[in-house]
Amino acid sequence: MQENLKLEELSELLNSRQLRKLKEVLTEFNEMDIAAFLEEQEAEKTVLVFRMLPKETASEVFAFLEVEKQEYIINSITDHELGTIIEDLYVDDVVDMLEELPATVVKRVLQSAAPDTRKLINQFLNYPENSAGSIMTAEYAGLKKDMTVEQAFDYIRKHGVDKETIYTCYVMNSKRMLEGVVTVKDLLMNPYERFIGDIMDTNVIKAVTTEDQEEVARRFRKYDLLSLPVVDHEDRLVGIVTVDDVVDVMEQEATEDFEKMAAMIPSEKPYLKTSVFQLAKNRIVWLLVLMLSSMITGGILAKYEKAFAVIPLLVTFIPMLTDTGGNAGSQSSTMIIRGMAVGEIHTRDIFRVVWKELKVAILVGFVLGMVNYIRLIILYPGKEMLCLTVMLSLMATVILAKTIGAMLPIGAKVFHMDPAIMAAPLITTIVDAISLIIYFQLACSLLGL
Amino acid sequence: MQENLKLEELSELLNSRQLRKLKEVLTEFNEMDIAAFLEEQEAEKTVLVFRMLPKETASEVFAFLEVEKQEYIINSITDHELGTIIEDLYVDDVVDMLEELPATVVKRVLQSAAPDTRKLINQFLNYPENSAGSIMTAEYAGLKKDMTVEQAFDYIRKHGVDKETIYTCYVMNSKRMLEGVVTVKDLLMNPYERFIGDIMDTNVIKAVTTEDQEEVARRFRKYDLLSLPVVDHEDRLVGIVTVDDVVDVMEQEATEDFEKMAAMIPSEKPYLKTSVFQLAKNRIVWLLVLMLSSMITGGILAKYEKAFAVIPLLVTFIPMLTDTGGNAGSQSSTMIIRGMAVGEIHTRDIFRVVWKELKVAILVGFVLGMVNYIRLIILYPGKEMLCLTVMLSLMATVILAKTIGAMLPIGAKVFHMDPAIMAAPLITTIVDAISLIIYFQLACSLLGL
Repeated sequence: MQENLKLEELSELLNSRQLRKLKEVLTEFNEMDIAAFLEEQEAEKTVLVFRMLPKETASEVFAFLEVEKQEYIINSITDHELGTIIEDLYVDDVVDMLEELPATVVKRVLQSAAPDTRKLINQFLNYPENSAGSIMTAEYAGLKKDMTVEQAFDYIRKHGVDKETIYTCYVMNSKRMLEGVVTVKDLLMNPYERFIGDIMDTNVIKAVTTEDQEEVARRFRKYDLLSLPVVDHEDRLVGIVTVDDVVDVMEQEATEDFEKMAAMIPSEKPYLKTSVFQLAKNRIVWLLVLMLSSMITGGILAKYEKAFAVIPLLVTFIPMLTDTGGNAGSQSSTMIIRGMAVGEIHTRDIFRVVWKELKVAILVGFVLGMVNYIRLIILYPGKEMLCLTVMLSLMATVILAKTIGAMLPIGAKVFHMDPAIMAAPLITTIVDAISLIIYFQLACSLLGL
Repeated sequence: MQENLKLEELSELLNSRQLRKLKEVLTEFNEMDIAAFLEEQEAEKTVLVFRMLPKETASEVFAFLEVEKQEYIINSITDHELGTIIEDLYVDDVVDMLEELPATVVKRVLQSAAPDTRKLINQFLNYPENSAGSIMTAEYAGLKKDMTVEQAFDYIRKHGVDKETIYTCYVMNSKRMLEGVVTVKDLLMNPYERFIGDIMDTNVIKAVTTEDQEEVARRFRKYDLLSLPVVDHEDRLVGIVTVDDVVDVMEQEATEDFEKMAAMIPSEKPYLKTSVFQLAKNRIVWLLVLMLSSMITGGILAKYEKAFAVIPLLVTFIPMLTDTGGNAGSQSSTMIIRGMAVGEIHTRDIFRVVWKELKVAILVGFVLGMVNYIRLIILYPGKEMLCLTVMLSLMATVILAKTIGAMLPIGAKVFHMDPAIMAAPLITTIVDAISLIIYFQLACSLLGL
């Protein structure tokens, strides 16, 4: 509420062209809020306001902008201005931006960057997508073992302003190999004359450039980290991952799992920014696969045409059976997929998990079956065998659905497939088919069809 | 891999009773890893090893332990030892623990704590669950405007060791009202003689104790924060939330949404620690509701018994229709629910979202319908009207499913209900019923039944 009010004030100043006053007021705003304000402005006004910002603020605001605005600004400013911004940005933010910009704009950005920066950007662009390397940044504070606390402070005072974090400093030897970490808190708690080598923590939690970003996020959660050093395969420090990027990774990975489990190809952009055509494309693939696979279920039903020609009532229980089976199965697969995503359940737990799900399934299946039997026996007095058929089918369906629901995601993981994709959309189709076979087989034998 | 190896070494030392060596080796381990090691030990050995730890390490390790182990340790140590640990712990960790411990143990913990700590714990225990107050901690570094940078450093050196974070310091007036923030980075970049009042940032992003923790997490993500001050309704600073707790909140909230959307009551504990009985209880409520509601679908089918008595083939398309409808609907509701959870979609976007989903639905429905028609016309030559019935029903089902899927979660939000609970489990039942009515109505009129 308050934020919107303040942004309105900025708009008013801009629209009434009180530019000097606007420039003054802008200094009181948070970079994120200025970015939000710029997002709302039309193209020319964006550049007008952007140029009003003090140099340091400008780069930070730029990093917060959506890629469309960034592109517009890049195309409207001079090479020199662009070069200054690129130098001020953290290399991970530049890389994120370049991955979304058109090739011609990328070329101009790289040309405007200083040679060292350009080399670094190119190196970072080569890390595989979703790897630790792809989310790290190069702006860390590096210290040496033989520095004193006082020298460390001098170093931080001199170079700290450009670093993404100074609160954890990394101690390297002459080959840039990581020897320890020391926090600013450690520095503050120790006398000026002590050596970094004596106060650093040598038990460093780190990641390798090629490790998966989900693994990195798990390490942050487990050890409550603010930053994590990333080393190459020769154990040389190449960058750090900071917690703000990990927060984004966690949100993004959870969103992807939601999308996959609802049978969609994960989208690159937020919902409101994704085109109708792209959304349709992401959704239609799985819908087609699942539609065609539910024809198998249709084929099974066709085999029992005679059964429901004799007792049409049998058909009316199909939705209840298949829906309950589907729901019971996705309950199990969801728990297991999520458990694996947060690192609680591992493939080695397969027997334990399946056994647990089996016990839950028997409990749940029994209760559901009994409730159903009582309901049916009241509704259809005298049709005990039919009621029994429905009850037994329901119990068997729930037990099978939950067992399959537990095994599918772990099985997918064993074969290095994505549990979220493999298990969630497929479970309904599989459970549908199996439950109908059980139902009609039971009906044929119990009702003598 | 490496971590497990190291833990094995600890086990070996413990089992061969090389306790002096163990005590020495333990000092090289991270607190989180020591906690993991303790989790694996039987009861008496836990206390044996725990008592070996240096005082400062012991409290940190204690904070990382599961509540069962914490309870065991509390029951095995003296009041004095307990008091020391409680004083060393951050108040948010104590509160988290107390919320899970049995009342008698809680009483002993509170009695062992110093009066001030006890008062603070009691205050924190009163904040509503999932509020900013419930996840905050009281150990922040508070400064005054008229301190110089040098005095601020002195203060931090003296008191910083007990603070959960010192990297962001909070500046208060004599009424404890928040006037600004200053980071240690700001302190390091400024000369010793400058006043805090001159370098602090007065544009403070904060939360109120009663705000929802999800809202707090959104603010961390938006502004890339490491900590956030929490004020009471009189704008007095009462605590801070740190990013490590927000990371846990995000994981927990996403897990809850996964559970709700798969028709489960969210569980309090991780999967492997939840009892079979509790799991069954969490799942059976929704399964029962959904089972009973799919009887409505059964009732609809019963009304058309005559239709499928004449053309039994009609039955074989039911799973394809209802499954595709369910899948199409949950695709839409999942996108919207997740969009609302991460703060991208708001209730005011309802028309925009529904309109977008309608366009996607028409596109997807058309493609699915056409593919189906072509397949059917090849399989069942001469039955054009039947094929047309299935095609039109499928298109209508997909369009309705996606529109309802988009409206349900936003509608739930408007009426202050939980979108994840309201929309995801119900969508299948609603879509099943509607699609079957459309299908059989079309069949009756097009096929003249």
